[in-house]
Amino acid sequence: MKTRAAVAWEAGKPLTIETIDIDGPKPGEVLVEIMATGVCHTDAYTLSGLDSEGKFPAILGHEGAGIVREVGAGVTSVKVGDHVIPLYTPECRACKTCLSQRSNLCTAIRGTQGQGLMPDQTTRFSCEPVGGRGRNEVFHYMGCSTFSNFTVLPEIAVAKVREDAPFDKICYIGCGVTTGIGAVIYTAKVWPGANVVVFGLGGIGLNVIQGARMVGADKIIGVDLNPAKVEMAKKFGMTHFVNPDEVGRDKVVQAIVDLTGGGADFSFECIGNVHTMRQALECCHRGWGESIIIGVAPSGTEISTRPFQLVTGRVWKGSAFGGARGRTDVPKIVDWYMEGKIDIDSLITHTMPLDEINTAFDLMHEGKSIRSVVVY
Amino acid sequence: MKTRAAVAWEAGKPLTIETIDIDGPKPGEVLVEIMATGVCHTDAYTLSGLDSEGKFPAILGHEGAGIVREVGAGVTSVKVGDHVIPLYTPECRACKTCLSQRSNLCTAIRGTQGQGLMPDQTTRFSCEPVGGRGRNEVFHYMGCSTFSNFTVLPEIAVAKVREDAPFDKICYIGCGVTTGIGAVIYTAKVWPGANVVVFGLGGIGLNVIQGARMVGADKIIGVDLNPAKVEMAKKFGMTHFVNPDEVGRDKVVQAIVDLTGGGADFSFECIGNVHTMRQALECCHRGWGESIIIGVAPSGTEISTRPFQLVTGRVWKGSAFGGARGRTDVPKIVDWYMEGKIDIDSLITHTMPLDEINTAFDLMHEGKSIRSVVVY
Repeated sequence: MKTRAAVAWEAGKPLTIETIDIDGPKPGEVLVEIMATGVCHTDAYTLSGLDSEGKFPAILGHEGAGIVREVGAGVTSVKVGDHVIPLYTPECRACKTCLSQRSNLCTAIRGTQGQGLMPDQTTRFSCEPVGGRGRNEVFHYMGCSTFSNFTVLPEIAVAKVREDAPFDKICYIGCGVTTGIGAVIYTAKVWPGANVVVFGLGGIGLNVIQGARMVGADKIIGVDLNPAKVEMAKKFGMTHFVNPDEVGRDKVVQAIVDLTGGGADFSFECIGNVHTMRQALECCHRGWGESIIIGVAPSGTEISTRPFQLVTGRVWKGSAFGGARGRTDVPKIVDWYMEGKIDIDSLITHTMPLDEINTAFDLMHEGKSIRSVVVY
Repeated sequence: MKTRAAVAWEAGKPLTIETIDIDGPKPGEVLVEIMATGVCHTDAYTLSGLDSEGKFPAILGHEGAGIVREVGAGVTSVKVGDHVIPLYTPECRACKTCLSQRSNLCTAIRGTQGQGLMPDQTTRFSCEPVGGRGRNEVFHYMGCSTFSNFTVLPEIAVAKVREDAPFDKICYIGCGVTTGIGAVIYTAKVWPGANVVVFGLGGIGLNVIQGARMVGADKIIGVDLNPAKVEMAKKFGMTHFVNPDEVGRDKVVQAIVDLTGGGADFSFECIGNVHTMRQALECCHRGWGESIIIGVAPSGTEISTRPFQLVTGRVWKGSAFGGARGRTDVPKIVDWYMEGKIDIDSLITHTMPLDEINTAFDLMHEGKSIRSVVVY
């Protein structure tokens, strides 16, 4: 069949809207009509060409929500008409990692997903560009490719969610919301009364903040160079703000230790800067403070600290997709949104049709949006 | 009263045996007759002068066992005649850290202990050396000073232990045994069937190994440059050996990943080298592997890695005194020794009277001993 999609033909170029060919689902796969998709920094990172694993041409997008329109042979966990969120971190419930019950980083389809292929090592997308040189195979992206109106996913890579939830909001749970809230709940297991520090008040940081508020954290301290972010952060639950340019960039750790009476119980790095990652560790409380890295640092950069920081009880961790098991936990987060426990609406600052998707990238690069959502 | 002690008059010089003056216990303190003491690398480190916090003259020693001979006013948890192990990490059960129930690093007397003083900011030791220049105050060391036949300790810094346990063996529980076994049980919480890697097969490493065996670990892989250590390590439970000079020093991580089918569930660094600390982290299993730093690195050195290692699920931790709460956990470890669950006898390769204590340092530096014990 045919579908409309924004195709990334090569790195560094805007996406172009094309009518492409999509093959139906093979065994174990489902065809999903994407109703809405967020545009995330990770899409921009790959489009920029800095992602050494990026493959072109590809259909980007990994933060979607939609409806199952066709199921392949043997699919049992979802049916036509189900509302789903695509999962770039699948949950097979059968691999060594899933069965360990200690990690969400399912490895069932890791190899092919990284190559831009379905598990059978082929792609479902192809396209003959206008004035083009014949039919091109187009790669999948993060196993999702939500910048296509229709996409194909393995059954283990969709989370079935309730049908009364609006697609143009819950699509954000496919990445940013879960990454932030999940890091608090599933990776760190923040307890009520804990003091929490959040480095970086972008979309992920705001979701960490509201996750901390939801579980009853005491002080929720935001750290950012941009005071314009304070108002929104307070709305999401930030109780204190530290601006490194005000306290001194080399005095951030001491400022947090003072504010918390000894150090943070938990800190979250949501920037992707190895220097703030070190500050995030070292501002933790001696004896038990845990620092969780969420941000993605530039390739080749390294974190460092004195080992004494760890020997005296601090713990250094990371979190991917918020430690959430997609099929199990994503539906719960949709429920929390529908029950009013978390706010997504305020974070979606822009919506647009697929034709204007490049505007979403512009708004992101200009720092004008928290999240843009494309509605099909 | 008078007592015999080995005094460290200055850095880099041998200890000298002196008859010194010791004041009786003040309120909340106890006088302990030390019956036996181990000689540990940490004593040698301070004696060398490299320890920037070392104070002289001092009575070193922190790995002892003895009998309470006098109690100060208000002491309620021990009585005259009780057998005890001095604790360089006390357990007050009242400070923020003890009450957190998340760390063993009690802070009740941290400030004065680091200064070589009792909690009232004075010392109980003084000495007029032969041919000397008048009476000298002599500092305490790590709150213990077990190189004195009699010593004074705060009540919160002694663990009461069973009376049928031999002093010349259980003294080692005052530091090395607990540091190794505790890191497995209290810090890492190694589970039955886990794959464990131990970097460094000295005394701490051997105790990590027997701790891992005790809790039912599966593979217990030792890493050391010295093949002469293999026999003893196997006796303690090591199942596999990796010699970095055989597999290639830059291929240690891969060798462990291969041996464990994906990486270690837990690794322990017992060397104090920031390069092996990195290897210990990176040989852990994606998704959940935890690396615990036990070794003390040279001052000024730093650990580093790519943050991706943590974001993909590895955890970097440290352990001091094995994460053990001294008064609560040390008596249990004495029980385990008496019940035959752990071996200490094989680790104590040399015993000697106090007069020969400098020989213990020589044996250590020459690599001829695992542990030397001075018996009073």
